[in-house]
Amino acid sequence: MIPKLNSIVESIPEALSIFVNQIVYDKKSRGERVYTFSLGEAFFDIPHFEISDEAFRRGCHYSSSMGQPKLRERLSEMYQRSYGVRADPSTEILVSCGSKPILFMAMQAVLNPGDEVLVHEPGWLSYKEQVKLAGGVHVPIPYYDGVYEWERHLTDKTKLIVINSPNNPSGQLYSPKELEYLLKLAQEHGLFILSDEAYSDFLMPGDTFVSMAGVDTSKENTIVVNSLSKNMGMSGWRVGYAIAHQQVIEQLLKLNQHLLTCAATVLQDYMADHFDEILSATLPQAVETAHKRRAVQDILDDVGIGYLKGVGTFYFLIDVSSYEGETEELVRTLLMEHNIATVPGRAYGDSTADFVRFGIGVESLEDIEKCLRVIKSLI
Amino acid sequence: MIPKLNSIVESIPEALSIFVNQIVYDKKSRGERVYTFSLGEAFFDIPHFEISDEAFRRGCHYSSSMGQPKLRERLSEMYQRSYGVRADPSTEILVSCGSKPILFMAMQAVLNPGDEVLVHEPGWLSYKEQVKLAGGVHVPIPYYDGVYEWERHLTDKTKLIVINSPNNPSGQLYSPKELEYLLKLAQEHGLFILSDEAYSDFLMPGDTFVSMAGVDTSKENTIVVNSLSKNMGMSGWRVGYAIAHQQVIEQLLKLNQHLLTCAATVLQDYMADHFDEILSATLPQAVETAHKRRAVQDILDDVGIGYLKGVGTFYFLIDVSSYEGETEELVRTLLMEHNIATVPGRAYGDSTADFVRFGIGVESLEDIEKCLRVIKSLI
Repeated sequence: MIPKLNSIVESIPEALSIFVNQIVYDKKSRGERVYTFSLGEAFFDIPHFEISDEAFRRGCHYSSSMGQPKLRERLSEMYQRSYGVRADPSTEILVSCGSKPILFMAMQAVLNPGDEVLVHEPGWLSYKEQVKLAGGVHVPIPYYDGVYEWERHLTDKTKLIVINSPNNPSGQLYSPKELEYLLKLAQEHGLFILSDEAYSDFLMPGDTFVSMAGVDTSKENTIVVNSLSKNMGMSGWRVGYAIAHQQVIEQLLKLNQHLLTCAATVLQDYMADHFDEILSATLPQAVETAHKRRAVQDILDDVGIGYLKGVGTFYFLIDVSSYEGETEELVRTLLMEHNIATVPGRAYGDSTADFVRFGIGVESLEDIEKCLRVIKSLI
Repeated sequence: MIPKLNSIVESIPEALSIFVNQIVYDKKSRGERVYTFSLGEAFFDIPHFEISDEAFRRGCHYSSSMGQPKLRERLSEMYQRSYGVRADPSTEILVSCGSKPILFMAMQAVLNPGDEVLVHEPGWLSYKEQVKLAGGVHVPIPYYDGVYEWERHLTDKTKLIVINSPNNPSGQLYSPKELEYLLKLAQEHGLFILSDEAYSDFLMPGDTFVSMAGVDTSKENTIVVNSLSKNMGMSGWRVGYAIAHQQVIEQLLKLNQHLLTCAATVLQDYMADHFDEILSATLPQAVETAHKRRAVQDILDDVGIGYLKGVGTFYFLIDVSSYEGETEELVRTLLMEHNIATVPGRAYGDSTADFVRFGIGVESLEDIEKCLRVIKSLI
């Protein structure tokens, strides 16, 4: 018999999205055509450059736990150029193995045991588990509570507010006014705002992304986390970064040294060396994805399916509350009887239990419309 | 003013080895010749293969949080072939971003708040911080306490024993009899043994490495962590793995899903596709490093410097107790006045405060002898 395990870790349920995608994978490997709306990835054409022997050799070794200096410089320039944010690449930017571990380390760095963390639903499913693992208490805010109503969720234990803008999966983009209000709230109550900006490029030209670091210019209350691998369509490369106050970066650095060391050196160098070339190839594809999202929105309106308001990312949270049974049953029926893969909204919070996440990154508009009509016929 | 931060994270000191290596880096970038005995890396010639467009495209995407199936198969074959350990690649092996985060996730998976963790000194410096971050209590065992004396450090709160075999930095290899005794202890007291085997290949042919997973064949009390990037001399690639009981792997899988997702897909595929070719190039270099270590041991004996007994890795923990001042002062003098970089032994535990870590991976035997004579003249 194995000894007793950690009770928090044991209580983490299997992620619903992963459960669904495992079935998708099994079906596909049996040769079935599965309409896949359950994946959290964009499928971009990425330019492929040679890696020289010298770069390969250098890339085999550890590199700074702050991230490769050249990559931090490129990121600093990008946040300045694209979002008007100043971030000193030597003290205010840290690169590590994807935005996921950086979000967790940010929570570790600011939470003391029992501190409460507000997360607006729909919330990306790892926030909740990361909060618990970092010793905090997860306090969900229902999706229908607008930013100006969040104050009533504050207690003296509140320490952190997590926002995801644009939001996965609703696509909601918080307005500059909302972000300024949140900053005021954070300043008044001594809170941090952890701003997950992983989908910052998945917007149409009219929808301007505002970084929380551009609102909180002192960065005293803000930790921005973003993902190179997501915005560049290279999720499998595991390269993300934080932009924060030097004092917070110093803590993240120690955590990164003891928990991870660095993102793969050879991949950081590749991204730094070809930064502009990759971005000029992938940015238009992210914008194109946002255009596709708008087209899908028109289809949803046409078919008569409701959805949460949003403009960015490559997801919708669609309303299936008129379905008679449980949402999970609908998702199962769609998957097993119609080969249509979606994720139950409960994965993103109790308040969104009557929704399903519908990702549009993989399938064509024709197949999307066909599948949405199947969903409409069932709900 | 920024809000209050986490007190455990704030209390983590800057790692002494990183502090030293930062000075080394600064000196080198000013063109100085620094004799570098402070690095935790081997410098191997690694074969460089082309990455096809198809492999590149595939490698841009997320992959299983268990690790790429093909890589797990290669690892399973290697542990069977080299160490006689059976590990089912589909349920008993998990790959992630280096052995560092896997060690931490293993601690998270098995420790409940306040559980005590025994670490034999010299202990690799992140063990202590990882134990604290995972909510445990770090209980050091002095280097001079042999395995058969460890029982007296047990309390009812003891949950985990961390061993590192061969040990960084002493080079100590635990014998099969010692490992069997530890297993019995773990079984009797309901403990886990976390066996860090990152230096398993850095041994001369006569010194047979025994994996803890080959002793605890049920794997009920053992979690093995090893590093592809270390043994293959590709530390910058961040690919490590765990071998453990299926029930433990299931917990590590959930943690890996929520904290990291996966090691870089493109690098996992590269390692899996060229596994045998890489190993056949790097294994002889690891063995050669062990031979070099033996040659350095002869030099130490000749010069008349003591050291902790050991046979593997590319380090020595050398005895500088005859130095009149503090060890830190000696290390500073060596670095600033003689351009000889070492790491104070206190980084590896209080009981080794009168030692310094001396890594032999970088410099030639001639320069090693020259520098050891300088050290001898000072102590």
